[in-house]
Amino acid sequence: MSLEFEISGTGEGGGRRGRLRLPHGVVETPVFMPVGTAASVKAVEQGVLEGLGTDGAGAQIILANTYHLYLRPGHELIRRMGGVHRFMSWERPMLTDSGGFQVFSLSKLRKVTPDGVEFSSNLDGSKHFFSPEHSIDVQIALGADVVMAFDECVKSPASWERTRESMGLTHGWAQRSKDHFELHKNEVPWFGERGSVAQSLFGIVQGGMYADLRKESAERMVEIGFPGYAIGGLAVGEPREVTWEMIARTLEILPKDKPRYVMGVGYPDEIKEYAKMGVDMMDCVLPTRAGRHGLLFMREEAGGPVVRMNIKRKEYAEDQRPIDEACGCPVCRRYSRAYLRHLYVAGEALSATLNSVHNLAFYLDTMTRVRAELAGSAML
Amino acid sequence: MSLEFEISGTGEGGGRRGRLRLPHGVVETPVFMPVGTAASVKAVEQGVLEGLGTDGAGAQIILANTYHLYLRPGHELIRRMGGVHRFMSWERPMLTDSGGFQVFSLSKLRKVTPDGVEFSSNLDGSKHFFSPEHSIDVQIALGADVVMAFDECVKSPASWERTRESMGLTHGWAQRSKDHFELHKNEVPWFGERGSVAQSLFGIVQGGMYADLRKESAERMVEIGFPGYAIGGLAVGEPREVTWEMIARTLEILPKDKPRYVMGVGYPDEIKEYAKMGVDMMDCVLPTRAGRHGLLFMREEAGGPVVRMNIKRKEYAEDQRPIDEACGCPVCRRYSRAYLRHLYVAGEALSATLNSVHNLAFYLDTMTRVRAELAGSAML
Repeated sequence: MSLEFEISGTGEGGGRRGRLRLPHGVVETPVFMPVGTAASVKAVEQGVLEGLGTDGAGAQIILANTYHLYLRPGHELIRRMGGVHRFMSWERPMLTDSGGFQVFSLSKLRKVTPDGVEFSSNLDGSKHFFSPEHSIDVQIALGADVVMAFDECVKSPASWERTRESMGLTHGWAQRSKDHFELHKNEVPWFGERGSVAQSLFGIVQGGMYADLRKESAERMVEIGFPGYAIGGLAVGEPREVTWEMIARTLEILPKDKPRYVMGVGYPDEIKEYAKMGVDMMDCVLPTRAGRHGLLFMREEAGGPVVRMNIKRKEYAEDQRPIDEACGCPVCRRYSRAYLRHLYVAGEALSATLNSVHNLAFYLDTMTRVRAELAGSAML
Repeated sequence: MSLEFEISGTGEGGGRRGRLRLPHGVVETPVFMPVGTAASVKAVEQGVLEGLGTDGAGAQIILANTYHLYLRPGHELIRRMGGVHRFMSWERPMLTDSGGFQVFSLSKLRKVTPDGVEFSSNLDGSKHFFSPEHSIDVQIALGADVVMAFDECVKSPASWERTRESMGLTHGWAQRSKDHFELHKNEVPWFGERGSVAQSLFGIVQGGMYADLRKESAERMVEIGFPGYAIGGLAVGEPREVTWEMIARTLEILPKDKPRYVMGVGYPDEIKEYAKMGVDMMDCVLPTRAGRHGLLFMREEAGGPVVRMNIKRKEYAEDQRPIDEACGCPVCRRYSRAYLRHLYVAGEALSATLNSVHNLAFYLDTMTRVRAELAGSAML
């Protein structure tokens, strides 16, 4: 049995309050997933992740990157360690991407054929080859709760013709990913340890910035059939209205009873908006990456718009207030803007940790509020 | 009133089980003080520091560096923020050094006169001047529980003549530090908030590697009179037997009813040895600095010698054991050598955090055991 997904209520805009049962636990949706690139959510300890957010419930599910873990320490090593959950001591749910996006964004040399992608490592230049089958093998070895079909991402902007060609490749790879996954899914390192709940494979809808291609891609993915669907290739530089439009057109096609995941988004107001449209899962490096650059999400006043505070600015040098007076995260409860500015300016390692903890808490709190709103609307 | 120091028992070797009452709390001695250079124990959050060690009692007292905080963010800023305790949200005791050691070790250009030291900032090359009076002013602004007299440190090795000359300067500066401190100690940012307990100024014994000079320096310091005495200028490259000899000769002179602090030491077996000789306080960057370099203190077997494990070694790549099976720290309870090696090799920020947490816990546990031993011997 793969995942179970129950929807307990639907809001006016199509947003759904749901519950996703995965091998390593239950995830309340809509959910934001912090990114743990190389089996670590950068600068944040697992115990801290488990208690994040004003409600202290912590991150419910995190993401790890197949590309990074394949190159270092290697998926076979992680398989021998019992899978990535055990390797990094994270017993809650986890999702791995397919490696496709990183092959296209990080690797300098790459050659795409219908069979797969030859690429050179961003670490040492060594040559590697990823096919759909190999991506699935790697993801089974890592053993995340949810794994992703191998896809191609086109550069943005791309012509309709180039986008359609790439999409065709992705569709073929999706079928091959599924076929290979079905044959080998029992090879997951924790097979049999989690009752009858097994890994799940999600398909990825592509189609660039063309509504007709998004529609075609979503229909094809549904035809192949997956327990969940992702929308990929967005938030790659296009205007925000286009992202919204592509998500909206795709959600119309995807089955309502399956989880829908938009990859790599977004700002706090975006994840809130997409959740209210009916997106159940999202991930993004923004809270941690912005944190490392001294950018902190906050509201100037309760209920006001979300802004990014640049903590290195001189105006915060003697500011004894917390980042956000309405935030209940451990950073806002304990530390002043003045201290956080000092840590950033002095290049202290603690700066990245505290900034990331606050930003992640801000994201998780955003989703907690969306879930409460959707639960309320469901009772009407 | 400055500090109160009660000794509840003395071991055979001269080691003392004591209790030091400071404005921000009580410190059980002998104690190891983690170093929080720029108002942060590098890569370790204050909440984690408060719970460190197998007993969960945490760091009792930490050290901050006057030189670093004077240059950035500046002592006047910290004074306006209420002192370094409030600035960094650390409500337990704290000690600041005088800045003397960093002026001599970090600053490229410096000119020493009987009046003080002109030096250039290691950050931007700007010119600064520290006199004993200025060091004390800065330390009063920072507001640590214990502050140190301004001293000169000679390079090691140094001739007897050069060492004696430098020591003479230190003695003059100690008297001036005390005079200035007595006049201005009520200017501490938290004056009046901690009942009748005020900051304390410790004198520093110098004298290099010459037993006769150490004796002379200790006698002179006692003559000036301080509520506690430090032994400085050790662990600067000399053989271990010499360090031991200098400490032993100095302890003979220092009053038994006052706390004795050896600055900048040492390895775990050294801090244990010195504590058993009658040293009450020690500080060292070693646990955190070694941690950042992937060096972990541990014992191969319970009761065996302390060794440094180099976590980047290939042999740990698939080692599922904790760093030290007998260690009860949160890192050893949760993470494997294999994961810690991966974090180090991948350059993950979490590596420095976890390694530092383990090493600090190892140091604190070492002192917890020494205190228990000394408490036992006191009952004989």
